[in-house]
Amino acid sequence: MASASLDQSYMKAALGLARRGLGNVAPNPAVGCILVKDGLVVGRGWTQPGGRPHAETVALAQAGAAAEGATAYVTLEPCAHHGETGPCAEALVAAGISRCVIAVSDPDMRVSGKGIAILAKAGIETVNGVCEKEAAELNRGFFWRVSRNRPLFTLKMASSLDGRIALENGESKWITGVEARAYGHMLRARHDGILVGIGTVLADDPSLDCRLPGLELHSPVPIVLDTGLRLSPSHKLAEWASVRGTILIHQVRDAAKEKALQEKGVDTVAVDDTRDLEEVSAVLAGRGLTRVLVEGGGQVHASFLKAGIADRVEHFCAGKAIGAEGRPAIGPLGLASLGDAPHFNLHAIRHLGPDILASYVKAE
Amino acid sequence: MASASLDQSYMKAALGLARRGLGNVAPNPAVGCILVKDGLVVGRGWTQPGGRPHAETVALAQAGAAAEGATAYVTLEPCAHHGETGPCAEALVAAGISRCVIAVSDPDMRVSGKGIAILAKAGIETVNGVCEKEAAELNRGFFWRVSRNRPLFTLKMASSLDGRIALENGESKWITGVEARAYGHMLRARHDGILVGIGTVLADDPSLDCRLPGLELHSPVPIVLDTGLRLSPSHKLAEWASVRGTILIHQVRDAAKEKALQEKGVDTVAVDDTRDLEEVSAVLAGRGLTRVLVEGGGQVHASFLKAGIADRVEHFCAGKAIGAEGRPAIGPLGLASLGDAPHFNLHAIRHLGPDILASYVKAE
Repeated sequence: MASASLDQSYMKAALGLARRGLGNVAPNPAVGCILVKDGLVVGRGWTQPGGRPHAETVALAQAGAAAEGATAYVTLEPCAHHGETGPCAEALVAAGISRCVIAVSDPDMRVSGKGIAILAKAGIETVNGVCEKEAAELNRGFFWRVSRNRPLFTLKMASSLDGRIALENGESKWITGVEARAYGHMLRARHDGILVGIGTVLADDPSLDCRLPGLELHSPVPIVLDTGLRLSPSHKLAEWASVRGTILIHQVRDAAKEKALQEKGVDTVAVDDTRDLEEVSAVLAGRGLTRVLVEGGGQVHASFLKAGIADRVEHFCAGKAIGAEGRPAIGPLGLASLGDAPHFNLHAIRHLGPDILASYVKAE
Repeated sequence: MASASLDQSYMKAALGLARRGLGNVAPNPAVGCILVKDGLVVGRGWTQPGGRPHAETVALAQAGAAAEGATAYVTLEPCAHHGETGPCAEALVAAGISRCVIAVSDPDMRVSGKGIAILAKAGIETVNGVCEKEAAELNRGFFWRVSRNRPLFTLKMASSLDGRIALENGESKWITGVEARAYGHMLRARHDGILVGIGTVLADDPSLDCRLPGLELHSPVPIVLDTGLRLSPSHKLAEWASVRGTILIHQVRDAAKEKALQEKGVDTVAVDDTRDLEEVSAVLAGRGLTRVLVEGGGQVHASFLKAGIADRVEHFCAGKAIGAEGRPAIGPLGLASLGDAPHFNLHAIRHLGPDILASYVKAE
């Protein structure tokens, strides 16, 4: 009954379930699990908000006794460590599944293979590597937090067709239409954190939340790169910090102001140099963030590009011209030749009302 | 046998034939003609290079005696005036066609309806307005030369995703890939003229020709906006002028230099103010040009946008970032508010290798 193409089909469905957790499960990976018995799906699960229960636990609970003799499709190697509920690999064994198809091994070299070993020791037929590339790509942020000590960074920009994000006078509402802006909010929901420079906060006074009906609780953690500690404790990003977990990364020290911000719940983090993005991203990884959306301004985008850690670009492009006085989507990069230009592979294009969304992945 | 949907199908085929003439028939319109008898296509024709023979003449010659009793589909009202070969409306009557389906009337109010009158007088059933919008759009350049005394202008730009067309040092070869550049040459073949500012000529030394195999003879007329009469008579655009018909529009007068350029075949045109694009476009309309591709630089694009005569935009966008020091695709526009930004409707998106081509039509 098992065939390679059937395995791939079920795994793709499991990846679809996994995707539901993105932006809502950090520091855990977003995992999907499907249990199939005699050609019927008897259980489906995905990592729940906050990271628990795991996908396997949800699917097994749904299947109940029907899990016995089933094939489990899981998008990431089942965990082998004892957490709140015991390792998933042992739970799959206890439920009596007969076969386990896995997309990709755990990226943490200290535990990689241990879940598979538990399954194999119990005599369960185990297949690894089905839709491996897609599964690794889906959890890229989780993988890189483990292997590179930093989140995945996605630059988001909404520009005119000539690459401007505002007029010279700062007017930027709205360059793109309602459809593009709604999609931008969906992008926010799929990320753990949303990073902006203090310049953007002071100029645009953004809420940095997800305002799509039903997804309000998926708002990412606001992160402000605020070298000079300029954010006012009465700014909404500070006022809401106890709920939203605002992180403020600064360089200038000012004990009184830090205290005032902290009293509002702001997570103030002093670093040696806010321009050192390796240090900044280690802070974010340390806070458990796996996927961070970088929403500008142009200087911040340029910094991430120069540091080589702009992993993806989501470019909303409107059919408008703003002209050369407009504010640039990307600040100065100091390129000496075109060969040095950061370049990206086109991953997808979407029509969003009158606008285009071009999605890029960094060319490695 | 005749049905509205069948008429539309044949007319779309005729529009496909008409399109073959674009860029090669000015100052004439690009017309297509199909003759159908008893459900069989017995003749096909389109306007030949230089504008003659007309589409109807070609189709009738192909059909011979089979034209008798056929239905003629023509994308523009058949001409009624006596030229080298007599009016097409009379030729259709003489061939004995029984029905004539027309997409759009002649835009010239002095002759509009005259062709149809000849057909009607001969007792031929005549239907007008089938695929009218597409037909008018296809010959927009011809229509506007007649009604607005100017060609259709299409801005072409090849930029990084942040809207830059060169590094600060001028390096621009190549931002886009081979596929985009080949498509750019096809765009050239479909236009009668290609306009650039003298700055672009001096910086990039462009040939402004179509270098696609088989389409070399479709190279458009080079047009240089050269306020200060800076083009050297030994520049290739001057050297090739006797073949390519280079037009140079200037403001500064210099009899000796004008003479030297004219001796090479350059069509030097002094205007009162090269920034007055109404004057400039009237010159081009006077030279018979119906479709002009504007290939920059940023200042020239800005001028056309400010004048409100950038009718279409072909934006080739590469997945590269150049940064704010790079040269802008569009120079300063002096906008006071976003509502004043020139805006365009997205007409089509194409993937061209690693790049995107977004085609826009001016929002009226």
